[in-house]
Amino acid sequence: VGSCFVQLIETVGPTTAITDCCSVKRTVMAEVPPALRAHFVGGHPMAGLHVSGAQHARSDLFRDAWWVLSTYAETDVTALRRVESMVYALDARPVQLDPHDHDEHVALLSHLPHVLAAVLVQMGERLPGQFIAGGSWRDLTRVAGSPPPLWEEILSANRHAVGEALAQLRAELELFECVLATDDHDALRRYLTDAVAARHRLGGQASRESG
Amino acid sequence: VGSCFVQLIETVGPTTAITDCCSVKRTVMAEVPPALRAHFVGGHPMAGLHVSGAQHARSDLFRDAWWVLSTYAETDVTALRRVESMVYALDARPVQLDPHDHDEHVALLSHLPHVLAAVLVQMGERLPGQFIAGGSWRDLTRVAGSPPPLWEEILSANRHAVGEALAQLRAELELFECVLATDDHDALRRYLTDAVAARHRLGGQASRESG
Repeated sequence: VGSCFVQLIETVGPTTAITDCCSVKRTVMAEVPPALRAHFVGGHPMAGLHVSGAQHARSDLFRDAWWVLSTYAETDVTALRRVESMVYALDARPVQLDPHDHDEHVALLSHLPHVLAAVLVQMGERLPGQFIAGGSWRDLTRVAGSPPPLWEEILSANRHAVGEALAQLRAELELFECVLATDDHDALRRYLTDAVAARHRLGGQASRESG
Repeated sequence: VGSCFVQLIETVGPTTAITDCCSVKRTVMAEVPPALRAHFVGGHPMAGLHVSGAQHARSDLFRDAWWVLSTYAETDVTALRRVESMVYALDARPVQLDPHDHDEHVALLSHLPHVLAAVLVQMGERLPGQFIAGGSWRDLTRVAGSPPPLWEEILSANRHAVGEALAQLRAELELFECVLATDDHDALRRYLTDAVAARHRLGGQASRESG
């Protein structure tokens, strides 16, 4: 990525805006040369499918999806407005986050679900006898079919934030195991009720399409 | 449940078949009195919605769904055939599993996804700023909206198997964290590739509808 930025330096004019679509923002934005930073707006459309290739193209892929934009202190507001216009033209919703917050959000909201799907299908294969999964399993493991080379790159680039999210999840699961082991009905009911409320509050904020 | 079985003893005739629809089989089947076991076939339709109530009824709820049937050594084959006929009449697919295997399967395939959804929405709420979830998050957390009283009962009844599945998942996640922490690209790629293959093999066995 770095060498490609260097090539761009000679081509920028005063109104040039440059953006990218990478799933991790800190790594990319650390590589943008100072000479380009006034023109650069980091981008990440929170949309995508678990299949790749032109044959899966959809005209409404970005409709109502969040499109994260990350700027430098040096980024020109004109460059930001131009990239925002492009996002609106694709029917997506621009939202500004700094690179660190973005990477932490996607670690939990996108990368962790992919890790869980990959782990769970392999646990599922170890079950003896007829495989009797229903809808909740299918939903959970849908993204286990995502292209390995792409996800190897994403998970590696965001490995610190993903590692933290995984460690946090393990701690939460251990707590839940304690509630189950002691068969504490009040705590169990409270946990599940809090989850319904949390999902309800978050639901209104989520965007429509896959990613 | 036990007292309801006792009431049934006086009503059974030679061709009576009794079944249930509970999500956990060991607890129910331990309570069936010996006098009823020749007539009893444990049942669990692997279908359902994350909403309850008659207003959400669907005529195709069971279509192509697995319907687990569990028998005793004493269960009369006529009773089994009658319950199987009912399952076929609802367009579902009967599959026999002993109560222990059933409870282990659903711990991983249905109960664990519900626990994960409940845990993850609460982690999601703790993220600062605009919530930018996409499709993989929405799929993963859909079942966090399931009715707490029902799930309190299910998770409590199957707490041993669910606890084991959670402990196994935590061990797997810890392994994955090591792969990430060492940034071992080969191991990461292999893990993701194995997951795609596992999902592909399991996919053909999964049933169509939610649950």
